[in-house]
Amino acid sequence: MTQEVKIIDLSLRDGHQSLAATRMRTRDMIPILELVDEAGFYSIEMWGGATFDVMHRFLNENPWERIRTVRKYVKDTHCQMLLRGQNLVGYRHYSDDVVDKFVQKAVENGISFFRIFDALNDVRNLETSIKAAKKYGAEHVQGSICYVISPVHTLEKYVETAKELAELEVDSIVIKDMAGMLSPKAIYDLVKALKKEVGLPVNVHSHYTSGMGTMTMLKAAEAGADMIDTAMSPWACGTSHPPTESLVYALEELGFKTGVNMDVLMEMRKHLLELREKYAGYIKMLSTIPDTRVLKYQIPGGMFSNMLSQLEEQNALDRLEEVLEEVPRVQADLGYPPLVTPTSQIVGVQAVLNVLFGRYKMVTKETKDLVRGMYGRTPAPISEEIIKLILGDEKPITSRPADLLEPEFEKRRQELVEAGIENPSDEDVLVYTLFPVTGLKFLKGEISEEAFPAPAGEVKGEYEVEIEGRKYRVKIGE
Amino acid sequence: MTQEVKIIDLSLRDGHQSLAATRMRTRDMIPILELVDEAGFYSIEMWGGATFDVMHRFLNENPWERIRTVRKYVKDTHCQMLLRGQNLVGYRHYSDDVVDKFVQKAVENGISFFRIFDALNDVRNLETSIKAAKKYGAEHVQGSICYVISPVHTLEKYVETAKELAELEVDSIVIKDMAGMLSPKAIYDLVKALKKEVGLPVNVHSHYTSGMGTMTMLKAAEAGADMIDTAMSPWACGTSHPPTESLVYALEELGFKTGVNMDVLMEMRKHLLELREKYAGYIKMLSTIPDTRVLKYQIPGGMFSNMLSQLEEQNALDRLEEVLEEVPRVQADLGYPPLVTPTSQIVGVQAVLNVLFGRYKMVTKETKDLVRGMYGRTPAPISEEIIKLILGDEKPITSRPADLLEPEFEKRRQELVEAGIENPSDEDVLVYTLFPVTGLKFLKGEISEEAFPAPAGEVKGEYEVEIEGRKYRVKIGE
Repeated sequence: MTQEVKIIDLSLRDGHQSLAATRMRTRDMIPILELVDEAGFYSIEMWGGATFDVMHRFLNENPWERIRTVRKYVKDTHCQMLLRGQNLVGYRHYSDDVVDKFVQKAVENGISFFRIFDALNDVRNLETSIKAAKKYGAEHVQGSICYVISPVHTLEKYVETAKELAELEVDSIVIKDMAGMLSPKAIYDLVKALKKEVGLPVNVHSHYTSGMGTMTMLKAAEAGADMIDTAMSPWACGTSHPPTESLVYALEELGFKTGVNMDVLMEMRKHLLELREKYAGYIKMLSTIPDTRVLKYQIPGGMFSNMLSQLEEQNALDRLEEVLEEVPRVQADLGYPPLVTPTSQIVGVQAVLNVLFGRYKMVTKETKDLVRGMYGRTPAPISEEIIKLILGDEKPITSRPADLLEPEFEKRRQELVEAGIENPSDEDVLVYTLFPVTGLKFLKGEISEEAFPAPAGEVKGEYEVEIEGRKYRVKIGE
Repeated sequence: MTQEVKIIDLSLRDGHQSLAATRMRTRDMIPILELVDEAGFYSIEMWGGATFDVMHRFLNENPWERIRTVRKYVKDTHCQMLLRGQNLVGYRHYSDDVVDKFVQKAVENGISFFRIFDALNDVRNLETSIKAAKKYGAEHVQGSICYVISPVHTLEKYVETAKELAELEVDSIVIKDMAGMLSPKAIYDLVKALKKEVGLPVNVHSHYTSGMGTMTMLKAAEAGADMIDTAMSPWACGTSHPPTESLVYALEELGFKTGVNMDVLMEMRKHLLELREKYAGYIKMLSTIPDTRVLKYQIPGGMFSNMLSQLEEQNALDRLEEVLEEVPRVQADLGYPPLVTPTSQIVGVQAVLNVLFGRYKMVTKETKDLVRGMYGRTPAPISEEIIKLILGDEKPITSRPADLLEPEFEKRRQELVEAGIENPSDEDVLVYTLFPVTGLKFLKGEISEEAFPAPAGEVKGEYEVEIEGRKYRVKIGE
């Protein structure tokens, strides 16, 4: 029997989020949306993650409008969003009534596939949103497991988390590797274990960062993965994802069935290539090549760069090796959290402080909150000794963090009316609840669209320019 | 038993040839050469291909000096060159005495690994150089087979060519895929067949162009390949090669033995990343992302782009589909030549002419020469009908093209003396023989080093510049 491997294309969300700071405009997507719908993808990720924040803050676009616009053209393919569990598309835990309302509105506006994750893999933080998505009729509700390299993250541990998600009746499980650390061998073993033990469709999400992304997807498919994530070639590789066309071709030739039409991909590619040129000014060279440091240090590229900057500011770059040795110790002390935002930064900053000032002599508020349980339950328990060292006599909470939160949706609506927004829609209230400052500005019409960083997309060719008194010939826009 | 997969790193030749027009200076290589030697590569490709031409023509560097300089530091690793068979590092067939002398001088200066190919896979065109390399004591002499997708290029055909090379007592066979068209499935089957039938070590060379490069190398290793070609991550991907670090990591974890030290790679990477920034002005955006058109059209990206330009010049872009259908017909008519330089261009240009003016109504000189046998024997015979159509009553040659050439080395030495170069060395005579115009200029000291395309590598940061009367903020050097 031919094994089916469904393709989830990320070009319209994680592709440009990973390469071009999430700046792609809705109007630039419209010309290919009908093609996207014809391509044969199982799903396209096109909302959530940083889109909500960037759209209202920098692009003067209503995030909700993007779903409606895309849905006008994309009728037969899932429109998928990435939801940060209880954090929604914001940066803190929101109360359950806000989570419920947000998911309801996302469904109503057109999201049919929810991918839901929690930075600590604390399934309790996914429960409200998973239940809401099912309640409001989302067709596919997917539970995520963030990928972590640590001694406690054995195959058994992943299977255990997957089973907890299965109890919430998710439609599938995704292994979500935000940092691009998954290797071909690791994913092969992991997919095999999940397929054998859990009985749910398995999806694999990684990044191209380590340069292993395509190999990882190939081995995932060979191990029996049901869905893989890719991005169209003009928005692929580097910190983005393995290229869609390349995987479709390679897998089909090897006997897998993707259902994707290569002719349509070629048409899509032309347009996406133009957009890549248009948005070139946002794309950093370092985002376009593999960051293979992850293969030696086993920590995400972004975290590594931040630690370097922190050390540089302290004139202590020579202590990098010590810091790199401290990272796994801090990760262990703090209960082996996945190294994804925000825990990657918490661990990284604390490791630097430990090296510079002595272990836990200086402790950040974020480290304290993590130990307090304010982000949720860590993958392994934190030892009494570390709790004592960091919190003194204070006791961590053991409940789900959102259990401490009062309902807030109606309160925010009231505030918004008082701020001068008459009859705000539920969607408006959500913009404001998640982003009280910039959201309010947006709703008041006080945000203007950020200009493109000139001259990318505006001028192109070779020019003579004068910079600091010297003349140069500059090639621009290539 | 652990399968060994030796790594051949291409960063110092094909890496920057593929991405930055071969412009890397010798002085920029020196700081990492000792590291390169420690890394554990089986071989580094660092000479041949376009280096000889570009160095004397644009960099005012003596190509021979590069070998000597690199050899000063790289003592335990093969220094490898790419030799175009009877074409050496130039663009026509040279007489046997020139080929013999060139190879002798390459060995004397420090090349220990010769990779030798012919654009038509006509093994007769490799014979003189293979024999010379062995005679002068090169430690590894490798015969290449250019990869072609065509009905006559069956596994049997590849095995047959490999056996012809084996008769010349080469040390190994490389499948050389200049256009990056090799897929994971195709290479798996091909390596399996070669390993089974030929009994020589097998090396795989591809490019990242189609986005499948790493998957292709992984499958090559699984099929039993003995050596694979890679380039360090800052010079990898796009039109270049699969990243070295990523493949080393993935293969080692899967149980293969590469012998490469990841710590050393990390040190090399830092320096190569600086060079990537320095040479950024040479790197086109289109070279840095996968060109997946090859997956649909099965023709190299460069050939595709040239056909597009040719059609554009004739205001006939609307006939692209016809041209794309004509390409395989022309390839068949001309005896299924590999689509590599120069035959890719011969086939491409002729296909366009056939569509615009009628089949073979206009025939280029190059097409005629190909049919005349002036490039060598085509993989399949050309039909009498096509020969008649293109050459009229003229008969093609059946001998090896270089059999028609008189010895020329001493003649060129004489010319050089007459041109005012006193006591030219053999190396000088070779520079002049291969490049009579620019080579003479170089030897006379009339070439100056091409400036870097400013401002890459010279200024960096954000500047306000005026271009065509408008002011822009430009980010430079990222």
